[in-house]
This record gives sequence, structure tokens and C-alpha cells, in this order.
Amino acid sequence: MSFDPDTLVYNEQGLIPVIAQDAGDHAVLMMAWMNAEAVRKTLETGRVTYWSRSRQAFWVKGESSGHVQELLELRVDCDSDCLLVLVRQTGPACHTNRRSCFYTAVRDGEPVEIMAPDE
Amino acid sequence: MSFDPDTLVYNEQGLIPVIAQDAGDHAVLMMAWMNAEAVRKTLETGRVTYWSRSRQAFWVKGESSGHVQELLELRVDCDSDCLLVLVRQTGPACHTNRRSCFYTAVRDGEPVEIMAPDE
Repeated sequence: MSFDPDTLVYNEQGLIPVIAQDAGDHAVLMMAWMNAEAVRKTLETGRVTYWSRSRQAFWVKGESSGHVQELLELRVDCDSDCLLVLVRQTGPACHTNRRSCFYTAVRDGEPVEIMAPDE
Repeated sequence: MSFDPDTLVYNEQGLIPVIAQDAGDHAVLMMAWMNAEAVRKTLETGRVTYWSRSRQAFWVKGESSGHVQELLELRVDCDSDCLLVLVRQTGPACHTNRRSCFYTAVRDGEPVEIMAPDE
């Protein structure tokens, strides 16, 4: 392919932030990181694959939980230093079993939980 | 307020990534960074205020361009290391005069521009 993941701008750890958005209702599900090889794997396999900073290993989203992210489209921002992946999400995206990781809103200065975990 | 921006998780540069999403149609507009003081200013003023890494200064979005972001809601992710701001965006969010910074899609391995600049 002529899109070359090596042309993206990575941080000192060789990582680029990735926003995952549900392609259906456009909810922002999570933010995680990829290195160039993870970008390549994601495009080649169609399964969103991050780089786990805590485990220092590839993280094929949903590989253990079953909560996979099927890649529908990958987008690059104007500075080539952030990615947006439009996905079909199976099950909750968050490890807390909530649909999205962004389940805490700040309302009137107070943190409020706006999303319950799936049953 | 009882939400304390100092409790968020910042990187080595004291910054946290922030995703800006249009509260109306849920388009992801851009990703930028805040430090704790920028989070505080954003909540206090209702005007989304980033930290410019290139200028090393506060960046009240739209202050020079007029393309302001009115904060409708700030959300925190499960690890407290990423923020989502739901905004009312005036004009284009991207410095290229496009509505969103994510105007390049990778389709069949090729980068494709999917959004034109505003007139």
C-alpha cells in the first residue's frame, strides 16, 4: 500500500495516540496508543491492534475479552500525530465493562457517572 | 468544585490528551493537550483552553481565529489519563480551515482526502 505508517509522527516512545469511535452512533469509545507496527497490523488484519504501554506488547483489542474492534476506517489528522479509527465494537470497549471509557462527566464541578456497566 | 484537575494523570510533560467532539453531530474535531491549569481554565471559563506544546503557552482555542470551542461537557476516562470535551464549535476546528483535523482517510491502502476546506 502507498500509505506508509512510518511517515506518521510518533512520540519519544515511538507511539501515536489513537481515538476509537463507534462507526454507528459516533460515540467516542476509548483512546489508546499504537506504534508503527501496530498501525500496520491494524490495517492488514482489520482488527484494531494497539500497543500496551503497561505490558509493552501488542494488544489485539478483544483478544482475551472477545470485545473486538473491527476496523471500518482509519483516519490521520492534519499533523500526522494522531489517528482516528472508526470501528464496529463488539461488547463494551472499556475494561470496566462499560460501552465507553468516558463514563465520568464533570457537571457543576462534580464528577458524575453517566454510564453503567453492562450486565 | 470537588472535581480536582490535579487528580488527573499527566505525562512527563505535565500534559493530558484531550479529544474535542462536536456535541451536535458527534464528529471528532481534533486532539490536543492540556495541563492542569488549562483544565481549570476550561472549566471556569467555558472556553476550551489547551496548552500549546509548540508555543509553550495557553491556547484559548479560537482566540485569534474566532473559531472558538464552547465547552458543553468535560468527561474523564476510566484511567483519568484522557479527556473528552463536548463542544459547540464555531467555524472550522482545524487550522487548515477544515471542520475536523481528521480529513485524511486510508482507503484500500491509499491516503484519501475526504473533507475540503471551508470557503
